[in-house]
Amino acid sequence: MADPNPPQTFALGSPRVLVAGATGFAGALAAHLLWRHPGFELAGVTGRSEVGRRLDELYPRYRVPLEIQRLDLDGLAIDRDTGGRLAAAVVAYPHAAAAQTVGALRELDVRVVDLSADFRLSSLATYEQWYGPHPRPDLLDQAAYGLSELHRAQIAQAGIVANPGCYPTAAVLGLAPLARAGLIADVVIDAKQGISGAGRTFDETTHLSMAGENILAYNVASHRHTPEIEEQLGLLGAGMPVQFQAHLVPLDQGELASCYVTPTRTVAAAELDELYEAAYASEPFVEVVDTPPGTREVRETNFCRVFAAADGHTGKVVVLSAIDNLWKGTSSQAVQNLNLMFGLPETEGLA
Amino acid sequence: MADPNPPQTFALGSPRVLVAGATGFAGALAAHLLWRHPGFELAGVTGRSEVGRRLDELYPRYRVPLEIQRLDLDGLAIDRDTGGRLAAAVVAYPHAAAAQTVGALRELDVRVVDLSADFRLSSLATYEQWYGPHPRPDLLDQAAYGLSELHRAQIAQAGIVANPGCYPTAAVLGLAPLARAGLIADVVIDAKQGISGAGRTFDETTHLSMAGENILAYNVASHRHTPEIEEQLGLLGAGMPVQFQAHLVPLDQGELASCYVTPTRTVAAAELDELYEAAYASEPFVEVVDTPPGTREVRETNFCRVFAAADGHTGKVVVLSAIDNLWKGTSSQAVQNLNLMFGLPETEGLA
Amino acid sequence: MADPNPPQTFALGSPRVLVAGATGFAGALAAHLLWRHPGFELAGVTGRSEVGRRLDELYPRYRVPLEIQRLDLDGLAIDRDTGGRLAAAVVAYPHAAAAQTVGALRELDVRVVDLSADFRLSSLATYEQWYGPHPRPDLLDQAAYGLSELHRAQIAQAGIVANPGCYPTAAVLGLAPLARAGLIADVVIDAKQGISGAGRTFDETTHLSMAGENILAYNVASHRHTPEIEEQLGLLGAGMPVQFQAHLVPLDQGELASCYVTPTRTVAAAELDELYEAAYASEPFVEVVDTPPGTREVRETNFCRVFAAADGHTGKVVVLSAIDNLWKGTSSQAVQNLNLMFGLPETEGLA
Amino acid sequence: MADPNPPQTFALGSPRVLVAGATGFAGALAAHLLWRHPGFELAGVTGRSEVGRRLDELYPRYRVPLEIQRLDLDGLAIDRDTGGRLAAAVVAYPHAAAAQTVGALRELDVRVVDLSADFRLSSLATYEQWYGPHPRPDLLDQAAYGLSELHRAQIAQAGIVANPGCYPTAAVLGLAPLARAGLIADVVIDAKQGISGAGRTFDETTHLSMAGENILAYNVASHRHTPEIEEQLGLLGAGMPVQFQAHLVPLDQGELASCYVTPTRTVAAAELDELYEAAYASEPFVEVVDTPPGTREVRETNFCRVFAAADGHTGKVVVLSAIDNLWKGTSSQAVQNLNLMFGLPETEGLA
Repeated sequence: MADPNPPQTFALGSPRVLVAGATGFAGALAAHLLWRHPGFELAGVTGRSEVGRRLDELYPRYRVPLEIQRLDLDGLAIDRDTGGRLAAAVVAYPHAAAAQTVGALRELDVRVVDLSADFRLSSLATYEQWYGPHPRPDLLDQAAYGLSELHRAQIAQAGIVANPGCYPTAAVLGLAPLARAGLIADVVIDAKQGISGAGRTFDETTHLSMAGENILAYNVASHRHTPEIEEQLGLLGAGMPVQFQAHLVPLDQGELASCYVTPTRTVAAAELDELYEAAYASEPFVEVVDTPPGTREVRETNFCRVFAAADGHTGKVVVLSAIDNLWKGTSSQAVQNLNLMFGLPETEGLA
Repeated sequence: MADPNPPQTFALGSPRVLVAGATGFAGALAAHLLWRHPGFELAGVTGRSEVGRRLDELYPRYRVPLEIQRLDLDGLAIDRDTGGRLAAAVVAYPHAAAAQTVGALRELDVRVVDLSADFRLSSLATYEQWYGPHPRPDLLDQAAYGLSELHRAQIAQAGIVANPGCYPTAAVLGLAPLARAGLIADVVIDAKQGISGAGRTFDETTHLSMAGENILAYNVASHRHTPEIEEQLGLLGAGMPVQFQAHLVPLDQGELASCYVTPTRTVAAAELDELYEAAYASEPFVEVVDTPPGTREVRETNFCRVFAAADGHTGKVVVLSAIDNLWKGTSSQAVQNLNLMFGLPETEGLA
Repeated sequence: MADPNPPQTFALGSPRVLVAGATGFAGALAAHLLWRHPGFELAGVTGRSEVGRRLDELYPRYRVPLEIQRLDLDGLAIDRDTGGRLAAAVVAYPHAAAAQTVGALRELDVRVVDLSADFRLSSLATYEQWYGPHPRPDLLDQAAYGLSELHRAQIAQAGIVANPGCYPTAAVLGLAPLARAGLIADVVIDAKQGISGAGRTFDETTHLSMAGENILAYNVASHRHTPEIEEQLGLLGAGMPVQFQAHLVPLDQGELASCYVTPTRTVAAAELDELYEAAYASEPFVEVVDTPPGTREVRETNFCRVFAAADGHTGKVVVLSAIDNLWKGTSSQAVQNLNLMFGLPETEGLA
Repeated sequence: MADPNPPQTFALGSPRVLVAGATGFAGALAAHLLWRHPGFELAGVTGRSEVGRRLDELYPRYRVPLEIQRLDLDGLAIDRDTGGRLAAAVVAYPHAAAAQTVGALRELDVRVVDLSADFRLSSLATYEQWYGPHPRPDLLDQAAYGLSELHRAQIAQAGIVANPGCYPTAAVLGLAPLARAGLIADVVIDAKQGISGAGRTFDETTHLSMAGENILAYNVASHRHTPEIEEQLGLLGAGMPVQFQAHLVPLDQGELASCYVTPTRTVAAAELDELYEAAYASEPFVEVVDTPPGTREVRETNFCRVFAAADGHTGKVVVLSAIDNLWKGTSSQAVQNLNLMFGLPETEGLA
């Protein structure tokens, strides 16, 4: 009888990938996706806590039957020299904690998808303005920004792929066609996200009896995803300060970015449609839809659904962009980037 | 032994108030609030369906042990002439259906708080642009707009009080201090609301297995609360098209309006604080808070919590305004208005 | 203009009541109910953490504008001797931690409603079997079991009222009529409760992304509410081991005890109806209903709704008992007990 | 670039399967599972409403891009005669409505997995006692009961597979080892289920503002899954009336059956462990676990997790059985049965 939960199967010679920081929501999901991925071998899962427990005890649904280990850089060095080389790692550490580990892995010639913010901003000055001193500025020139749809070529070559924040993923995919066309004079981005966005954090923001039946704005006028959005829009030709506001709403996984664009000139509905269709016609994971997308439509997928409408009354353009914050917003996009980095079909393991 | 659910007690000679349309969420809550109100007698509850059932079967928590009746205008006429006059009615009918009933009640000299949109817009032209032909334009000059904090004097005298929409309540209370000070050059309002906002409607938008785990924008660039907000801001000196967008999120009761104001000039944090403190210092139901208000803080209350912050990075002003959509957004504001109409303390029955 | 959130008002000379441990869900709600209670003065709120913060920061909806203080037994002693005597305290501490504080308060002649399990079991042997050594067995004879409906006379006189566990409250109220009639040969109690039952605990059981979309049995065959139920049913004449099982389900407040009774003889539907009607006809807070009660019907009330049905197919009797675990299950029952202890109408402050 | 949502791919010559009644939750999920199944070709989806709409409009997450059609029995007859024969159908109709369609399909030599109750009871007398006259008693002898783990051989040969109710699936899998061992003298089954169990029904039981924050027992002492459980336990040697009670709790998908067994003799923990391990060691979809299983652990899987404990205090045995009511409880079990019927690996398409 077939086993519904077989040992990981992958092609012989598949790149070996480690997940460092697999006890958090993002790392655990990355491990799950890599475990069932036909093109990668999940080489191990590490954690800074819960060492010795199996990952499927912590996350039964993900069904990864591996023991959580401490990250052993010396062991990785020996492996490299004795033929069991690690090809890549997904690093799911908090900001600032990540950079040193990313550096150590790079010295072992391991390619890294970093889920933290440490390498997302190409401008060191901007980084230091929002985060303080950078732990490893010397590595910045190895990093590509991992919004797969916008930076495929750099991602394919990069030593470090800085996986985007979930809000920038939704917002920039929603706004890129307008930015590229030079149509954004000003923009307000109001984003809403489920409680999984707070991660495996145990406090007032995640307790069901406190987060339930609540709608809460946070980090008003100070969210660190702001410069990330600004830098990416700037690269597309829309350099300007962006008004970005995040909210927590009582669901598990899901994120909607509602974007209100003051255009540089009047934009007709038909032009808008053409612009978005053209931008995403060949993208496997971005779907332009003609009714407002609910986040439920993309739950537990790598899809981003984008809707754009011209408001004749105000002259503004409304763009709605829906993703699953843990999937396309974090871990499945990490896998999409690994596919790009290792020359696999971009959708492998994500369909 | 005392009865925890005693017959309604109210002062002798209290105005008698009917709730027409008590089977919906808004009407039922209005009946609940009036039943326990020491200054009004709940004269009856009517419905267009469920006639003969008791209201506390439909809404056990509200504990109003009255039978739902058909609205009997002839009977009300006899009552008027024989001493049992109805002083007021809360009409909780859908738009367009309300106006004729409001008219009939006015002919019996009954004062009305109308929960529909039929008398919210003073401009007939604007009404007809958004809603089509008005059923009773002749009654418009009897109507006051029932945002209690802004129109006390007119409400006190009015034959018809048009209870505001829930979104305009949150948005206009949030923006009024800036509007009055001439500080709004442009504004985007992104509002989120719980599923009770859809009312006792049984469809895809309210089914727990469809509305749950979802965030959904609706009525993009076409929500009928837009002209209502515009008219009220205009009266305060901020006439302009308003970008308003509504969303449903998976909770029961609660509403947050996130407002992004492009100011007419730079506004410093201290000035903003003073402006809001001054505007609401003597208001019993508006609280200016210094951290972002979660809707849970005001659940099942008539309070509105307002937070304002200047964003030094963008130059914009962010205003967050939280209410319970069914309470301050609808039914408890109706009671607040009845208090004003009948010279009772404004907070009576609402503390 | 009236203030919707006025300073606490109570009759002059009202008993002064302290809430010790007001930072948890149970203590905070008790403080809320006492603050608005016309017959008690809330003398203060204490906590073992959060000292110096105001309770309405932690629990905005409860609107108790008092600062959390450390419990100052010396100060209470001085107050006693100088005229400002504390009449009573609600102690909301964890098990074992409570008993010493209860003892210290008793030495100051303060009457106590203890929300912990320390004084719920009259049998010391049973206590020690389930909880280990008792910290203050000498106080046991001062304690009455605070299931208000069953022990009014003792509660009225007691120095210590041991407020029941939420599960025993629902289960025993549901089963008491059958127990008294000698009709219970065997019983299985399957109880379900919202996440607030876990209290202000921050872990896997309360995180919305873990507790949400989950149904979880806990403490299988070992829940400490079992002996409490057994002792109470035994006092009513139904002494036997009870199969009790608790579950967490994803809501905030609400609890349903589903009880499956193997009767000592066949019980007809009509007899069952009469038995329950007779048992609770004069009870202000227990309602016998003729359709299965949803917990939503009693949310944020002190009511218990009980439904009983004879199953002709199996011969068993099914009893459903619904309460709000934080209200009748904990804090509002504490107030009901305080009413009894101080000779106030039992429903005062709870309607 | 690879398409993440490619046309259905399946082996040439794969059996063609129709889903009749694909607009409901169960049919839609069956269509989803068959669409991505490598061993079947999804021949079409039919509905009694929504004809002409695409299934992925109604259920975006399921991503089945087929148009809903009316069931065309004449067309199926022509197909049969011209080489495009339908091999099987999943019929997702309400009870009583299903039998006639199942009959018509059988006349076309189409094998059927019927999701209704029409063929679940082998005893016509029992059926008629609980459901009324049977529409097609002549077909009963073609039917196998589709609890895959218990009736593999019959399912493999059957013309009609009566897919079990979700409650019997959880309960019987939980109790089978005890039943077979002759250890059940009496049993109480208390089951809890998410709102998806009510299906695509729009009423008070599914409205988020009514079903949310609620725990509700339904069909007290009268649930039609009772005889189904009794018949299956009887076949295993445990014939007796079963006390079964169903509850709705506020989540989407998930079901827990808590079973309280009075054993025929004392059962030790070690014996219990051995019994369950032996029973399910070689089952791909039943997992015996050593901590109480949360339904979240099996969400969107075909797994059933079973936990059994001996209660030394009462002498009873507590069994907890967790499934996803829409998956193993309905649609994925239908696919598991199709795999058995067509000689495919039992786990195909379900891993």
